[in-house]
Amino acid sequence: MPERGLLLVVSGPSGAGKGTVIEELFRRRAGLFYSISATTRAPRPGEVDGEQYYFLSKEEFEQEIAQDNMLEYARYCENYYGSPRGPVEDKRAQGLDVILEIEVQGAMKVRHNCADATLVFIMPPSIEELAKRLRGRGTESEDVVRRRLETSKAEIQTASAYDYIVLNDEVERAARDVDCIITAEKLRSQRYTGGFLA
Amino acid sequence: MPERGLLLVVSGPSGAGKGTVIEELFRRRAGLFYSISATTRAPRPGEVDGEQYYFLSKEEFEQEIAQDNMLEYARYCENYYGSPRGPVEDKRAQGLDVILEIEVQGAMKVRHNCADATLVFIMPPSIEELAKRLRGRGTESEDVVRRRLETSKAEIQTASAYDYIVLNDEVERAARDVDCIITAEKLRSQRYTGGFLA
Repeated sequence: MPERGLLLVVSGPSGAGKGTVIEELFRRRAGLFYSISATTRAPRPGEVDGEQYYFLSKEEFEQEIAQDNMLEYARYCENYYGSPRGPVEDKRAQGLDVILEIEVQGAMKVRHNCADATLVFIMPPSIEELAKRLRGRGTESEDVVRRRLETSKAEIQTASAYDYIVLNDEVERAARDVDCIITAEKLRSQRYTGGFLA
Repeated sequence: MPERGLLLVVSGPSGAGKGTVIEELFRRRAGLFYSISATTRAPRPGEVDGEQYYFLSKEEFEQEIAQDNMLEYARYCENYYGSPRGPVEDKRAQGLDVILEIEVQGAMKVRHNCADATLVFIMPPSIEELAKRLRGRGTESEDVVRRRLETSKAEIQTASAYDYIVLNDEVERAARDVDCIITAEKLRSQRYTGGFLA
């Protein structure tokens, strides 16, 4: 039986660069599985159930909630989004380390719902750099960017509730840090399954 | 002011290969300091105070114990051996990560005396390999080797009290593991000093 994989929650404020750090992490390290979210929003053209999302009806999603099958979920714009527990546990049982890329509020829920999750906060290098990144997308008005920045500042205050804080001033270094965190967490004595301890 | 360094205790049974793993670790990583023990035994020719050991008189050593200046100590063959707290704290304050290579009993004392120490247990790959290594030294009788093996088996049972267990089946991999443990421990949120959290 393979050693049970980790559940690694990668979170942080919008603009911190979670996605690019995770992409680089997948290039560096094998044995990872990127957890796919469930949603009640309609699939867009080309989207496949179980690839971009698990597409559920509102009734199905609410049943999953009722059965405690969501590690975390939230509702935006009339639609549910969440992290189904089943596939996460299946992949972990297969020995894969599951990466859950979620927002700060979701991360705190996983902390509560999954005692052995490892939480990593991706920290932007500075508020100035964060503002630059949010503005750099060029898709939002200055007003929206300012509101996002305020949210980000509030989210940064939750970082101390995470297990690890990784500064994303340089994507390769940040990915290497997360890589080391996974290696180290797998060496924790409570996870030791070497069979050498009687 | 530099970020405070770690105190990394590297321990494990005799024959586990603590010393070779640490040597390889020093080749891989900068910013480390190898903690020097204190002893009351007489210096041998060529030994220099503060290099191989801090050489203390029995009275001096007992005064250090009385003043709680020893992170751990033990008495063998009429002589004291111990790890002085002062140099460890000085080097940590300078931002160096201090490596303390000690026996299992000493490690448990450091756990008790230094709440923020990180404890790594170096695990031999098997009892058979451990026996081979102890015999390979060729300096001890079979009777002594057998007694050492019994002690080692008992020490292995303490591994779960450590933070991390590193299997030393291959020195380079083991050193890389310890390297990652240091990197990860420095990223723990309670050690975050990035100044970004208000």
